Amino acid sequence: MNQVKNNISPFKPDNFPSIPYVKGVDIKVSFSDTVYPPGRNDVVLFVFENEAIFAGVYTKSSMPSAPVDHCRSLHAKVDTVKILCVNAGNSNAFTGKKGKETIEDTTRLLAEQYQTSQDKVMISSTGVIGEVLDGKKIAKAAIKGHNNASYHEAAQAIMTTDTFAKGGYRKVTLLSGEIIILSGIAKGSGMIAPNMGTMLAFIMTDALIDKSTLQNMLSDIVEGTFNLITVDGDCSTSDTLQVFATGEACNNPLKGQDLILFKEALYALCSDLALQIVKDGEGITKLIKITTSNAENTLSAKKISLSVANSPLVKTAIAGEDANWGRIIAAIGKSGEKANRDKTSLAIGGVAIAREGEKVLFNEEDIKNLDEYMKEDIIEIDISVGVGDAQNIVYTSDLTHRYIDINTDYRS
Amino acid sequence: MNQVKNNISPFKPDNFPSIPYVKGVDIKVSFSDTVYPPGRNDVVLFVFENEAIFAGVYTKSSMPSAPVDHCRSLHAKVDTVKILCVNAGNSNAFTGKKGKETIEDTTRLLAEQYQTSQDKVMISSTGVIGEVLDGKKIAKAAIKGHNNASYHEAAQAIMTTDTFAKGGYRKVTLLSGEIIILSGIAKGSGMIAPNMGTMLAFIMTDALIDKSTLQNMLSDIVEGTFNLITVDGDCSTSDTLQVFATGEACNNPLKGQDLILFKEALYALCSDLALQIVKDGEGITKLIKITTSNAENTLSAKKISLSVANSPLVKTAIAGEDANWGRIIAAIGKSGEKANRDKTSLAIGGVAIAREGEKVLFNEEDIKNLDEYMKEDIIEIDISVGVGDAQNIVYTSDLTHRYIDINTDYRS
Repeated sequence: MNQVKNNISPFKPDNFPSIPYVKGVDIKVSFSDTVYPPGRNDVVLFVFENEAIFAGVYTKSSMPSAPVDHCRSLHAKVDTVKILCVNAGNSNAFTGKKGKETIEDTTRLLAEQYQTSQDKVMISSTGVIGEVLDGKKIAKAAIKGHNNASYHEAAQAIMTTDTFAKGGYRKVTLLSGEIIILSGIAKGSGMIAPNMGTMLAFIMTDALIDKSTLQNMLSDIVEGTFNLITVDGDCSTSDTLQVFATGEACNNPLKGQDLILFKEALYALCSDLALQIVKDGEGITKLIKITTSNAENTLSAKKISLSVANSPLVKTAIAGEDANWGRIIAAIGKSGEKANRDKTSLAIGGVAIAREGEKVLFNEEDIKNLDEYMKEDIIEIDISVGVGDAQNIVYTSDLTHRYIDINTDYRS
Repeated sequence: MNQVKNNISPFKPDNFPSIPYVKGVDIKVSFSDTVYPPGRNDVVLFVFENEAIFAGVYTKSSMPSAPVDHCRSLHAKVDTVKILCVNAGNSNAFTGKKGKETIEDTTRLLAEQYQTSQDKVMISSTGVIGEVLDGKKIAKAAIKGHNNASYHEAAQAIMTTDTFAKGGYRKVTLLSGEIIILSGIAKGSGMIAPNMGTMLAFIMTDALIDKSTLQNMLSDIVEGTFNLITVDGDCSTSDTLQVFATGEACNNPLKGQDLILFKEALYALCSDLALQIVKDGEGITKLIKITTSNAENTLSAKKISLSVANSPLVKTAIAGEDANWGRIIAAIGKSGEKANRDKTSLAIGGVAIAREGEKVLFNEEDIKNLDEYMKEDIIEIDISVGVGDAQNIVYTSDLTHRYIDINTDYRS
């Protein structure tokens, strides 16, 4: 089994990428003293010099946090915002009226400071659920932060149980020769990690793009990226993905081929950030890629892949480096999705394990190769359910003793 | 945290109940040498002297085992059966045509021996998935078994990863003064345990009852008993619950008040057996009872309870004796069911934790009491979601290091 050194994910990259500056976006980083002791930053302020249009996708939880309620409400009220303020350690979720007061305090102080209206101030929070957050402290910390902070500093400040900072960028050269930048950061050790957990991702771009085009694009992209990852099958009260576009690198709104190039870059960046989140899944030793093919439709393929990805029995088997394929069959069966048992096939690491409803006969060499494969860091499972021609891919982490350690001992 | 001695569930009862004989049912127990080494029995044969009517509920898996296919087919073909043959160690699931041949071999040999037709022979199997089972060996073992075996011996012979044998009984005195018996055995360490896992339960009765009445009753009862337990959120390829009624204790079919008494007894016995299965959930240290109230309807209440029951974060928190209620709120939120956040309340062990969308303020005494409560063996969680007036209760086990041990090291 993989050794997890100092409880850091074995997938931690050697270096944080050198994420470039996005025109029109200033970043400030500081500490609020609300949860963490001084010495680590926990507040990030993005200031859009000339405001930015925005798009967002939020948790489907019926228990959304106060910041999620607030962000959703801004979508209906304004076209552009001036500020995005993010804090880590307290998610301001399940805090009732006091949670609204927190938002009121933070947005009022920030609006005063930056001579804008409260409806131009986005808020995002991640951390413990059910504890009241002091909104004034967050605003004051945000204001006192040093200017020109890097994306690396910002990515570090929004971490909770993350074992590495997550970020990435893409550059696109438009037909006009103008170069636009997409720079993003993310945090999360799963769709929901322990009570300090949540998936947050923020992408800044200096592209000039129509607001509804950006929103439609993001809603589309999230299905193929962030919605295809799972650590423990949960979504949190605070999950948020937002894109802010300042337009400062373009003279004209994106259209035609430029729009296609932009969408490809945004898709790639979202994929990159989503995969970084799985790679920091709590207690991870193996990254698991599950492809379901020949399903009735892509949603059905996704549900079958997720049923396998969220099966504790599959996840523990892979942690134990055991190609226990009967558990994969059982997980396909319990998905509730259409599958033709007698046409179902399964491969692990490209080796056919079962074909048309039966085990494939192995020779000694095959078994040895499969045993060797199970020791690798990345395990690929290919399922074919013999119903239609749709496909979908899901990524997940394994289920290890370290996951239990993190989640039983978290408060003690 | 509870100490699990010798890896045996702390909920193991001191004694197996003294389950009474059911008129018209002979039991034979033996070993087949198909999976387990000699020394443990793995085949049970129930012989219905004058045949028995039957009712059954089977897995919803799209990958059902060959025995499940066979049993389902008998429901359409015959009204009574002569034989039920159960084996442990190999589930004859995902075995394609060879799986059908196994059933053909076993039913043919048993039909010859007992001078009946193959359509009068029920088969049930639990164990590894995807391995071919020698049906002749099973039949030969079944035939050579010693007569007049006890329910205790039968319950032991169908165990796989179970840490204790499971059984129970009920007696009902009819208005006529006749006494009828319901005697049952079960196995399973979860709806799906590791690859030797599956939930099986068989109940024998000497009541005389109309076949469709019994089937309708069983389909109804399973929703309130076996379908309300979960260990790891999975159903298996082989889950089976069957009732066999010989009618030998009654002169007339049950009706009116007698039918009500019988249904109550069957319900109680199913509840008893279902709870024994959860109490042997893999790696269990705590039994968790989750009640969701004020839901839109009972199905919605069940889905919310199950969302909490299957959350690895809730299960690990309870294993760690931590009243981490934010995770419960997040699990309610992700259920996809209607819940009014600002009317949602939560209690643990009868102590109000959250009320109307906010944390309840505790004093030191409350916190101490809650900490003490979390050390108990049975943890009760009460959720109210402020939507309607429906309620449902689900039972589950916690998620511990032992679960990971069992499921990562199973083959090694």
